[in-house]
Amino acid sequence: SARQIGQMAKAAALTHAPVSTISTYRPILGAAQNLAHHSQIRHFSILVTDKIPEKDPPKTRVTKPIFPGPTYTEEELLAVVPGHRQPRCLSDRLAWRLVRGARRLVDRATGVTDVKPLTTTQYNARILFLESIAAVPGMVAAVHRHLYSLRKGKRDQGWMKTLLEEAHNERMHLLTWMNLAEPGWFMRLLFIGAQGVFFNICFFARWVSPNFFHRFVGYLEEEAIHTYTRLEKEIENGQVKGWSDPTFPIPEIAIEYWNIPKDKQTMLWLTRYIRADEAGHRGVNHTFANLDQKHDPNPFEQDTRNTSSPVPNAILRPQGFERFEVIEGVKPPKDESESTLK
Amino acid sequence: SARQIGQMAKAAALTHAPVSTISTYRPILGAAQNLAHHSQIRHFSILVTDKIPEKDPPKTRVTKPIFPGPTYTEEELLAVVPGHRQPRCLSDRLAWRLVRGARRLVDRATGVTDVKPLTTTQYNARILFLESIAAVPGMVAAVHRHLYSLRKGKRDQGWMKTLLEEAHNERMHLLTWMNLAEPGWFMRLLFIGAQGVFFNICFFARWVSPNFFHRFVGYLEEEAIHTYTRLEKEIENGQVKGWSDPTFPIPEIAIEYWNIPKDKQTMLWLTRYIRADEAGHRGVNHTFANLDQKHDPNPFEQDTRNTSSPVPNAILRPQGFERFEVIEGVKPPKDESESTLK
Ligand SMILES: [Fe+2]
Ligand SMILES: [Fe+2]
Ligand SMILES: [Fe+2]
Ligand SMILES: [Fe+2]
Repeated sequence: SARQIGQMAKAAALTHAPVSTISTYRPILGAAQNLAHHSQIRHFSILVTDKIPEKDPPKTRVTKPIFPGPTYTEEELLAVVPGHRQPRCLSDRLAWRLVRGARRLVDRATGVTDVKPLTTTQYNARILFLESIAAVPGMVAAVHRHLYSLRKGKRDQGWMKTLLEEAHNERMHLLTWMNLAEPGWFMRLLFIGAQGVFFNICFFARWVSPNFFHRFVGYLEEEAIHTYTRLEKEIENGQVKGWSDPTFPIPEIAIEYWNIPKDKQTMLWLTRYIRADEAGHRGVNHTFANLDQKHDPNPFEQDTRNTSSPVPNAILRPQGFERFEVIEGVKPPKDESESTLK
Repeated sequence: SARQIGQMAKAAALTHAPVSTISTYRPILGAAQNLAHHSQIRHFSILVTDKIPEKDPPKTRVTKPIFPGPTYTEEELLAVVPGHRQPRCLSDRLAWRLVRGARRLVDRATGVTDVKPLTTTQYNARILFLESIAAVPGMVAAVHRHLYSLRKGKRDQGWMKTLLEEAHNERMHLLTWMNLAEPGWFMRLLFIGAQGVFFNICFFARWVSPNFFHRFVGYLEEEAIHTYTRLEKEIENGQVKGWSDPTFPIPEIAIEYWNIPKDKQTMLWLTRYIRADEAGHRGVNHTFANLDQKHDPNPFEQDTRNTSSPVPNAILRPQGFERFEVIEGVKPPKDESESTLK
């Protein structure tokens, strides 16, 4: 991850971020800042441009999504709020620390502060980078489940479906945003480098501890919801040039995937669709982190022999479900402090 | 793969195979044969038993398959025949050599000759081992396509769907057979060891050369069709104890997955359903090996903007489709010898 941090720090410098507090990376940043001195626009463009990219080449085959896009009611889209699951054990705390650290670094790298609204360029850079990363863990976990099922010759009990759906959904986020902004050469390098590092870390982490891994993803999703909620507010407040305009055209791929009705084909509602997806991932991954990976079924997939009990909805459960809530025959813990769902 | 070979050789010895021709492994085999001397039955059972395993534990959640099972007409099920694509380049020849070598080794390891019909134990051992391996390449290729799409921010053009479907389908073959035979401890060790080796080889090979990789899988599938066709014939001829009996109950999981009608719920038809799946993989992978992985769409997924042209059916095309047959705007080669589809 040091490489990733280094690359981010460079990116920070190149976008004229307030870097004085990242003392460790000052030498790199200093050099990069000198480089960036000549032309702010030119050096922004190595990360991302706000230019709407050209459409796919005419011969590109547009196929149905692997998994159909999710559907939400208007109430659900509006009801998603940032939330946080309090860490309860060392593994939780480590996951939370890592995510918070990465978040602060990205904030500084892209010059984001609590007070000033972000520019579209800042949003584009953050969202492109984060969505290219976000699609990795679901795929990695699906691979591990697949291999485990083969080694044991046992049914998967529904896990892979949800994990592959998550990976596909995150990839659709990236492809959507690729129709809003054109990544520059440095961003493309970041895609490659970060993926190489992150894929391997994920593969190893999921192998060592599925519970830590899914908790980590849960915390990542919490942060994604923070970012998209901020974007929602700033679009609503008319603070985001272009996107605050309800006639700003949103990508075709998004309209098709979420089946967005005419009156919701705006950047404001697109942001809410994506946020609802992230809320699903948040609840699902925090729940997965509470389960026994070897024996428990995936509670979010219907048991075909017991179709009367509906599957739980994770979108409005920021902390996920406790094991006793979703696994048959598991009793809630006696200890009061343990059972309190904060 | 040396490890795999070693393990196979051991397995060979333990099942009293005619091993005199595998001179390289004679020392290992000799030792193992001494070990096996005491009780043939006991040592067979370390590989596999013909005992029908107990059903899944009652709390197991039975979920819908990730991708619905394929559907075939009776004509299709009967029309699948073994076939071979002549290697045309060095990469093809290498793939073919590797598969043939592995095939011969497995034949010797499980004591299979051209003349004597196989026992159910021999079939169980082969099929369990091969199906646990067969589900790996599709998943590996899907991961590479996923990561590639993320790095480039480009549409996948339908590849992942077919690859994930293949991986899932092969896993269903394994799960089906796990309901017919109980693997012993040595087979379980083989599952783990072979998977560890094969997953990594596949991951690397798909990264280095997608074309070689898919050709190799195409040849593997050719061999699978040979095996299942032999099983079909020997069941038909009444040569397979138990399975030749049309009242022999086939696994519930298979009936549900392929939606097998009442009159086809026999081992004979189950064999044909699985063989039809393998024929699909054979045609698909030989086709994939002919394509440009970076730019060509997956011809087996419908273009949603051009639904009038049907997707090709790979089941009855043992050699797969040539690139000019399935990619728009590609001309057939001028050279006669090249364009002949053998
Ligand atoms: Fe996302
Ligand atoms: Fe997410
Ligand atoms: Fe198979
Ligand atoms: Fe196959």
